[in-house]
Amino acid sequence: MLIKELGEFGLIDRLNSLVVGQRSGPDNGAPFSFRLTVDTGDDTAAWKTGVATELLTTDTVVEGVHFTRSTTPWRDLGWKSLASNISDIAAMGGLPLYALVTLGLSPEAKVEEVDALYAGMLEIGNQYGVAIVGGDVVSSSVAFITVCLTGLHPGQPMLRSAARIGDQIAVTGYLGGSGGGLRLMLEQLEASAEAAEYLKQCHRRPQPAIAEGRALTEAGVAAAMDVSDGLAGDLAKLCRSSGVSARLYADRIPVHPLLRQTFPEGYLDLALSGGEDYLLLFTANAETVGKVMPGLSEGASVVGEIIAGDPGRVTIVDHAGVEKELNSAGWDHFG
Amino acid sequence: MLIKELGEFGLIDRLNSLVVGQRSGPDNGAPFSFRLTVDTGDDTAAWKTGVATELLTTDTVVEGVHFTRSTTPWRDLGWKSLASNISDIAAMGGLPLYALVTLGLSPEAKVEEVDALYAGMLEIGNQYGVAIVGGDVVSSSVAFITVCLTGLHPGQPMLRSAARIGDQIAVTGYLGGSGGGLRLMLEQLEASAEAAEYLKQCHRRPQPAIAEGRALTEAGVAAAMDVSDGLAGDLAKLCRSSGVSARLYADRIPVHPLLRQTFPEGYLDLALSGGEDYLLLFTANAETVGKVMPGLSEGASVVGEIIAGDPGRVTIVDHAGVEKELNSAGWDHFG
Repeated sequence: MLIKELGEFGLIDRLNSLVVGQRSGPDNGAPFSFRLTVDTGDDTAAWKTGVATELLTTDTVVEGVHFTRSTTPWRDLGWKSLASNISDIAAMGGLPLYALVTLGLSPEAKVEEVDALYAGMLEIGNQYGVAIVGGDVVSSSVAFITVCLTGLHPGQPMLRSAARIGDQIAVTGYLGGSGGGLRLMLEQLEASAEAAEYLKQCHRRPQPAIAEGRALTEAGVAAAMDVSDGLAGDLAKLCRSSGVSARLYADRIPVHPLLRQTFPEGYLDLALSGGEDYLLLFTANAETVGKVMPGLSEGASVVGEIIAGDPGRVTIVDHAGVEKELNSAGWDHFG
Repeated sequence: MLIKELGEFGLIDRLNSLVVGQRSGPDNGAPFSFRLTVDTGDDTAAWKTGVATELLTTDTVVEGVHFTRSTTPWRDLGWKSLASNISDIAAMGGLPLYALVTLGLSPEAKVEEVDALYAGMLEIGNQYGVAIVGGDVVSSSVAFITVCLTGLHPGQPMLRSAARIGDQIAVTGYLGGSGGGLRLMLEQLEASAEAAEYLKQCHRRPQPAIAEGRALTEAGVAAAMDVSDGLAGDLAKLCRSSGVSARLYADRIPVHPLLRQTFPEGYLDLALSGGEDYLLLFTANAETVGKVMPGLSEGASVVGEIIAGDPGRVTIVDHAGVEKELNSAGWDHFG
């Protein structure tokens, strides 16, 4: 069987079950090992160190698959390659700490490009309190960047598996801006200067929701993940992990006026499956949601509810009040 | 300037100085951050968690650069891709713990190949007490594998920067086997069945020196690193990091009889620059070295001494007693 037949998410499932099913023991014989508390399958892995819970995540971008030089300058690419990892830490409610950076580069690459890439990583690293403490550089005909990032949570991290029937579903800001910015650049569409600037900024300089994640976890929110592949696909993953279904309401999906202005037909699709927004999706009971919403920034909205049903099934009630199944495949890079 | 003009080690130096020089603060503002004790430039990064020192390392292999399918079957590739990271933990004197695995794969790759790759990773993982707790899969026209691995040390890790003038230099086993095995396969050379089996095994199934690293650190050895690029280049790195020079003795370099039999002319070159042996290089005063040597396995030898001189300079006294400069560039994948 070929990888493309299995698909990205089929492959991930297969590998997850392999590594858990064939592991010889959870504590691995290390006489002073830290106890694993979040295994493969969430935004990060996590273990208890005795004084806190440590988080570990990794994310890779490959040229031609996740980015192109024409739509993402090197400095922004550096920013984004760290941002996607910081966002995973945010999804757990943690603070990011130490990063290792691996660069796959052609020998013909320019040193100035690498400098610009690192300038972007240092910029976001310094803004979010992340130190790059090592890594690897390798020769590769296809450029890629892998970041591995640790984080800390003083207590219990938020999980994908903790959504409960009856929970409200909320997001921490406007959706679809990054996807809109990418489409604007790829298709060279017309837009107002203000909209073009806003949408490109969404795509090139996403702001991981560390403060929001801390606020949610401190308020007692138990279930969260970051929106990196699009709300539809990511919510389906959260629901599958929690063994529940979800219902969204099209009218409640938060979309920035400049996105709606630029894509009057397509804004909802972008919000649902645009990807790379790097804000948080979370679920909690109405009381907890009511407590946290006033502290979140513009665009934060309750968008639906967790319901009983097939694990991972997501429906949306459209503007006419008709409930439809959402394609929950997410963005499959192998499909 | 192009990366190939700067070279792999020039690039690493540049990036190391960037990430340290432009970091906004060592503690990064996190209110409960762990204190960084080993920064970029050693085998792993390290920080104190309150109960132990945690280690973090990453290593990547790219098809056509670090491996070919003809010389390394998928299962062995899985073994090796984890082995090189476990070896970095061994070099600090730690125990390996949790791994994240990133696979860059073509959509046309076979699922059976990924299964075999993971079988090899699980095999070495279970042998060394490592659990794979997450990762990433991405589409890439060039296959690559990145592993990020944590480890623990109950006290002070061994460092590249701790070699002192007057120290003896020792290695924990026979050198050059892996490079010999690779050359045997690439050049399709003649060898006895016994030698071919031994050398291929050295190349395909290196055994990271976790037990040796623990023994060294418990005996008070302060300076160590793993031999992954060849003794000559790796010793030069250790010396540069410690601000010292080194003198090796050709007669004392431990070479397995089957390597010498197969490469009667080339065995010393293989031992000095073959790479991927994944044993440990360490330095300590004569008393400490005398204490640890009897507990190490076959091949472990004192090979030279740390002397005053230009940081990173390594010379070798040949079989005729003549001292010569060793090319200390190591294996530069961009050169």
